[in-house]
Amino acid sequence: MSNESTIDPLLISVLGGGQLGMMLAEAGAPLGMHFRFLDPSPQAPTATFGELIVGTLGDTDALVRTAQGSAVVTYEWEGVPATGAASLESAGHLVRPSIRALEVSQDRLSEKNLFRSLGIGVAEFAAVDDRSGLDNAVDAIGLPAVLKTRCGGYDGKGQVVLQDRADVGPAWEALGEAGPLILEAWVPFDRELSIIAVRSVDGDTLCWPLVTNEHRDGILRTSTVTAEGDNTTLRASAEKYVGRLLDELDYVGVLALELFDVGGQLLANEMAPRVHNSGHWTIEGASTSQFENHLRAIAGWPLGPTTLKMPSVMVNCIGSLPEAAAIGAITGAHLHVYGKSLRPGRKVGHVTVVAPDTAQLHERLTALREVLPPDIG
Amino acid sequence: MSNESTIDPLLISVLGGGQLGMMLAEAGAPLGMHFRFLDPSPQAPTATFGELIVGTLGDTDALVRTAQGSAVVTYEWEGVPATGAASLESAGHLVRPSIRALEVSQDRLSEKNLFRSLGIGVAEFAAVDDRSGLDNAVDAIGLPAVLKTRCGGYDGKGQVVLQDRADVGPAWEALGEAGPLILEAWVPFDRELSIIAVRSVDGDTLCWPLVTNEHRDGILRTSTVTAEGDNTTLRASAEKYVGRLLDELDYVGVLALELFDVGGQLLANEMAPRVHNSGHWTIEGASTSQFENHLRAIAGWPLGPTTLKMPSVMVNCIGSLPEAAAIGAITGAHLHVYGKSLRPGRKVGHVTVVAPDTAQLHERLTALREVLPPDIG
Repeated sequence: MSNESTIDPLLISVLGGGQLGMMLAEAGAPLGMHFRFLDPSPQAPTATFGELIVGTLGDTDALVRTAQGSAVVTYEWEGVPATGAASLESAGHLVRPSIRALEVSQDRLSEKNLFRSLGIGVAEFAAVDDRSGLDNAVDAIGLPAVLKTRCGGYDGKGQVVLQDRADVGPAWEALGEAGPLILEAWVPFDRELSIIAVRSVDGDTLCWPLVTNEHRDGILRTSTVTAEGDNTTLRASAEKYVGRLLDELDYVGVLALELFDVGGQLLANEMAPRVHNSGHWTIEGASTSQFENHLRAIAGWPLGPTTLKMPSVMVNCIGSLPEAAAIGAITGAHLHVYGKSLRPGRKVGHVTVVAPDTAQLHERLTALREVLPPDIG
Repeated sequence: MSNESTIDPLLISVLGGGQLGMMLAEAGAPLGMHFRFLDPSPQAPTATFGELIVGTLGDTDALVRTAQGSAVVTYEWEGVPATGAASLESAGHLVRPSIRALEVSQDRLSEKNLFRSLGIGVAEFAAVDDRSGLDNAVDAIGLPAVLKTRCGGYDGKGQVVLQDRADVGPAWEALGEAGPLILEAWVPFDRELSIIAVRSVDGDTLCWPLVTNEHRDGILRTSTVTAEGDNTTLRASAEKYVGRLLDELDYVGVLALELFDVGGQLLANEMAPRVHNSGHWTIEGASTSQFENHLRAIAGWPLGPTTLKMPSVMVNCIGSLPEAAAIGAITGAHLHVYGKSLRPGRKVGHVTVVAPDTAQLHERLTALREVLPPDIG
């Protein structure tokens, strides 16, 4: 399986076949790379972007078939079972980013412990293993707080906010059976930010400018990158944090770190060991996209510059899509369609708007809002 | 066949499956478009970029299967037999650009006559139908001159330069059997230029900045776009010429017009009714690429802006490819690999270098030259 003579240096195996995999393939095709994806659905967005192995991400046989003969195995979803990825590594495949990054990001408690051990600011937190543990955690942390499953939550799922003591019982009823939990202090943040970084095989690290994010109903709605939002002091702090994480994990590829800006102090919320929704603007807005740099990193190539080309806003299309022609009529607007069936709450595409300056960016964004279906963005 | 109920508004049929088709697919995928290609080779560069119908471009059955159910039929090669494309139009398919553009561009004599009738500057030319016709043409036009096949030549093939009377006999021996010919006066040009333009269904026309091209052995080697090269007076003249062509042909899509700059006067050399090698730089260097705007135009969408984002140079990779990692190490360099087998004289990829200013562009180009194999570019 690890026989060098059968390795195609430009074949990339991707665990997961969603829109992140699709945009990896779009970035890799001009570089001569081709792709094999593993996804449970034959209708995965990547179905037309390379070879698609249909199978669950824990199916050993499917994993082996996906990895066979490829230069490197990567993942576009941190829900990939770490044991499966580890078995590929044991069989001699390069798996990038590291299995440890996958493991850490799959457990909010490990993640927060890692952040704390590296001197990365975090809100107070405590493990909750049973009903009395929840009471103890509330005593220790105070309220308001957020009770979360340690594993498997995304897009706001698996989370309950506790405003006062009366919420403790219902919160336990909602999540008590959902596996190990963590209670986190509610953070009265001013802004939600993220920093996207990439680290090469040689340990070179680059960060894109700070991204300001806006969530609604637990789902990312917009990501904005402007010179004004990319505060120098905050950026230095975010880069220091993410740099420690990348080095500690001997990371290769793109990593996103979500942060809260609390009166000019940064607290880390969570990390994603992969290309990230808040980095989609880099396709049009940065000198090198997160997708291209992830591929360059895992292929052992030098990284491309991550500088801002133009102020950018990305708007997620949730549940429905705008008319392509209407988006085409807006200068600087770029539509990305994921090829997924439309259903409420589902990310089915995004639009990135770029402009030479912030004033024009806001004008174009206003024009965009006028043509987006009301349920979008 | 033209049954509206079976039309997929996002399915684009492309006659030809080479690198131009590949880059159309790369531009269309994020817009939600998908592609069906017709190409004689199962190893066509587009084989992994959509559905591939294997067949000759004159095979009626294959043409019908390629067009079936698509929103619009386009072509990425002007060698597509016009009769085949016309039969699709007769059967109710939208074919864009127009069949007439295809016909005109397939015959250098029709092309030159059209240029002249529209007041577009051209070098002296004369039809050559037999040996005595060649003598008459030489008498009328003088020497040096270039004898060309009227149909089917590309990349310098099917052309012989006549320096003096002694070359007339050998030139006739070389091309006399190759079908109808045209003799064109040799143009003592200062620069070779091209203007790439796009026209929408509504007749809106946009041009990208003027491109300066460098050929060697009849093959395009580099295309350069800088503010310095985009002379205002020449550009106005080129835009006037290409605008007349587009309107006369009721053109929809991208058209390239190759021009000679002769002491500040423009003479038209030839047109290509499709996306063009000298427009590849638009992927990174312009606000909207020629590929995206061609698709927007033929789909009936509004056009995107064609403004220059950054000074750009495109270098063709002829016969061999550079190391992808070496290109990755050069800031602003973007590699495009066509997935074709390598052989001498064949266009197998290109590299576009962009930079914030002309000085840095030249520095990056120098770095690029150092990592290109000696036979490239």
